[in-house]
Amino acid sequence: MNIRFYNAKILTLDKEENFEIIQGELWVKGDSIYYIGDGVAPEAEPIAWEREIDVEGNLLMPGFKNAHTHTAMTFLRSFADDLPLQEWLYNRVFPKEGQLTEESIYYLNVLGIMEYLTSGITSNFDMYFYPPKNAQVSIDCGFRTVQVSGLNNFGGSIEIVEENYNIVNEMSDLTSMLIGFHAEYTTSLELMEGIAGLAQKYKSPVFMHNSETALEVKECIDRWGMTPTQITDKLGMYEYGGGGYHCVYLDDKDMEIFKNKNMTAVTCPASNLKLASGIAPIKKFVDMGINVAIGTDGPASNNALDMFREMYLCSTLAKVREMDAECVAAEKILYMATTGGAKAMGLEDCDRLAPGKKADIIMLDLMQPNMQPENNIVKNIVYSGSKQNVTMTMVNGKILYENQKFNIGFDPKDVYREATRVIRAME
Amino acid sequence: MNIRFYNAKILTLDKEENFEIIQGELWVKGDSIYYIGDGVAPEAEPIAWEREIDVEGNLLMPGFKNAHTHTAMTFLRSFADDLPLQEWLYNRVFPKEGQLTEESIYYLNVLGIMEYLTSGITSNFDMYFYPPKNAQVSIDCGFRTVQVSGLNNFGGSIEIVEENYNIVNEMSDLTSMLIGFHAEYTTSLELMEGIAGLAQKYKSPVFMHNSETALEVKECIDRWGMTPTQITDKLGMYEYGGGGYHCVYLDDKDMEIFKNKNMTAVTCPASNLKLASGIAPIKKFVDMGINVAIGTDGPASNNALDMFREMYLCSTLAKVREMDAECVAAEKILYMATTGGAKAMGLEDCDRLAPGKKADIIMLDLMQPNMQPENNIVKNIVYSGSKQNVTMTMVNGKILYENQKFNIGFDPKDVYREATRVIRAME
Repeated sequence: MNIRFYNAKILTLDKEENFEIIQGELWVKGDSIYYIGDGVAPEAEPIAWEREIDVEGNLLMPGFKNAHTHTAMTFLRSFADDLPLQEWLYNRVFPKEGQLTEESIYYLNVLGIMEYLTSGITSNFDMYFYPPKNAQVSIDCGFRTVQVSGLNNFGGSIEIVEENYNIVNEMSDLTSMLIGFHAEYTTSLELMEGIAGLAQKYKSPVFMHNSETALEVKECIDRWGMTPTQITDKLGMYEYGGGGYHCVYLDDKDMEIFKNKNMTAVTCPASNLKLASGIAPIKKFVDMGINVAIGTDGPASNNALDMFREMYLCSTLAKVREMDAECVAAEKILYMATTGGAKAMGLEDCDRLAPGKKADIIMLDLMQPNMQPENNIVKNIVYSGSKQNVTMTMVNGKILYENQKFNIGFDPKDVYREATRVIRAME
Repeated sequence: MNIRFYNAKILTLDKEENFEIIQGELWVKGDSIYYIGDGVAPEAEPIAWEREIDVEGNLLMPGFKNAHTHTAMTFLRSFADDLPLQEWLYNRVFPKEGQLTEESIYYLNVLGIMEYLTSGITSNFDMYFYPPKNAQVSIDCGFRTVQVSGLNNFGGSIEIVEENYNIVNEMSDLTSMLIGFHAEYTTSLELMEGIAGLAQKYKSPVFMHNSETALEVKECIDRWGMTPTQITDKLGMYEYGGGGYHCVYLDDKDMEIFKNKNMTAVTCPASNLKLASGIAPIKKFVDMGINVAIGTDGPASNNALDMFREMYLCSTLAKVREMDAECVAAEKILYMATTGGAKAMGLEDCDRLAPGKKADIIMLDLMQPNMQPENNIVKNIVYSGSKQNVTMTMVNGKILYENQKFNIGFDPKDVYREATRVIRAME
């Protein structure tokens, strides 16, 4: 689609802070951004616009990157809340997940993608069963998904990881796959060695759940005499970077490894609160120059898939953890939720708004009471913004969500009915 | 207005937990709820409906009570964020507040009321300058406001508190006033004694900011040899109940006083994070049977006025504070945000949905991705709900907000322009 946005405020996020806001136009040609500026045409040939959209002084900015999730877990939203972690995971979540099929996850993924779109999320970094099927859902919806394999002792093999890796990376420009495994505490040494081998063979970064709970780290040290970061680094996982999901309990040596291997700490603050895991040391990551990205985690442990919630928590939990209202300012948070995530996910062509970048763009309505007055638009977004302000979500040049309507090829009521059917049919 | 809602799920909140959801109809006559049931008419005379609204299987529930705020501080939203508390308060907030006038706060209050309506908040418990003017704004908008006097050493007197108390309590059924003062650390012994005298004269509960920071409590103990709760109790403040805003650092003896005097701990979790004050001991309040209500605090320290944010934080911060994912379940939170607030504010006739109660009702759209599937509607509201789900907010039988449109007698653009003008005109 060729789409011209005019009368816009444009937050390009082309710097790490001191963001500029451009007043003017943004032009999309096909799947990419063609022009940002004052609207004086940069070319002789006029463009045939399919749509010209008056942004009415509202904001265009890069879409959010949800850098850790298990999208299809929508079926377990509010199914087993207010329970201790072990009871939640072993007695509630695992028995239901065991009943999932390749078919049943299809609409569960569509439901999650719909929720991402309402929150201005334009891509997700997903770890779950059936990667090729998940990729197909994203392709069918027009959504952008990077997957990571979730190998562990309870299913899968190095061969299946490799097969899925090759299948998914050939499927579409919208989908890709990186090497990963579930976590040190669920994965044998032999499998972890196999993952390290694959990472080196394909020059892939490696991601896993890392130091989510204090118990996980303690048990790892009991087993190996070192932390999850250290044992996996020793196995040669991070020659091409990668990172960890959660990273609540990284120690100083772990952080040095993250820094030296150019890894990303993906923080999931809402999940870490709800499951009583703890509060991650975000200020220390920032001070050390470690890349930070933000994820919602799955809907069973959050329970929303909402980047506004995560941004608010990421900044304010850092403040209360350090007892320092000054630390981890809003600008840094907005960078994590967009560019930081894109860097982790290998989406360098979606990380900000600039000519040649993919058109993964959202529009925020500033003319709502929570965004007024406009003393500081960036701080308004992070501290006061809400899904309600998202009036458009565009992925790869296509508008998938606009004024509360979805344009992904599915009737929402069908999706809700199918998701309900999946959970109700389980024993 | 006589309004018939049909095809509704109705969460009456008539119990403290194990909530029932009724499928059926809710009838509003004038400013009150007339009937809840299956829709078989309970009277011979047919009612002349001004509107009949098909709720389409969505949810009606009591409006949220925002039990602590400074509404007119909207002008300072995102004006001075990411700063240490002292710098924020003394160098940024106070100099600007000093320039407010009775006229300038009018539209700042309207802006805040608009934001409340988007979040399903049907009444606020406000402490700020110019109580009669604030009351007038609420009356003009049709909104319900309980105020509390904010006396301190920097302005006002016992006589002015008494005068405002009598004026506001005579103005309208929509507005009322209770006795209060700012905080122990800003108020002289003489003024606190005067407040205790007024409370006894008018048989009013008393509210103040109480134990928001560790420093505040330490300095109080240095001054009086006892905590803010204990010195104010000793002065005879709580013969008719009352409570404290924030209550992050109450000790065991303080909690005994709260329990014995039937007082309310009003928690403001988002503000306590953002200003790095701490995390309140909500589980202990619940275990002791102390009434808990939830407030947003003012928009300068939050920065949103959103009860969904506060509910999420209230539950999940308790979980991470106690390292116990089981504690302070969603049902208790929903009770605090509605009935608990109403109890604190003296709004017993707005605390739940039942015939004879005031029609302060909200409609939540369950047919959005964040509320599906409906494994548990209450947990969906608290853990996944959002302002986006609020499709109607009714106060005193009048629909003030519906499908993102306001019906309060003001054009939103005028309100935004006036709020902007106030802050831009300041030095």
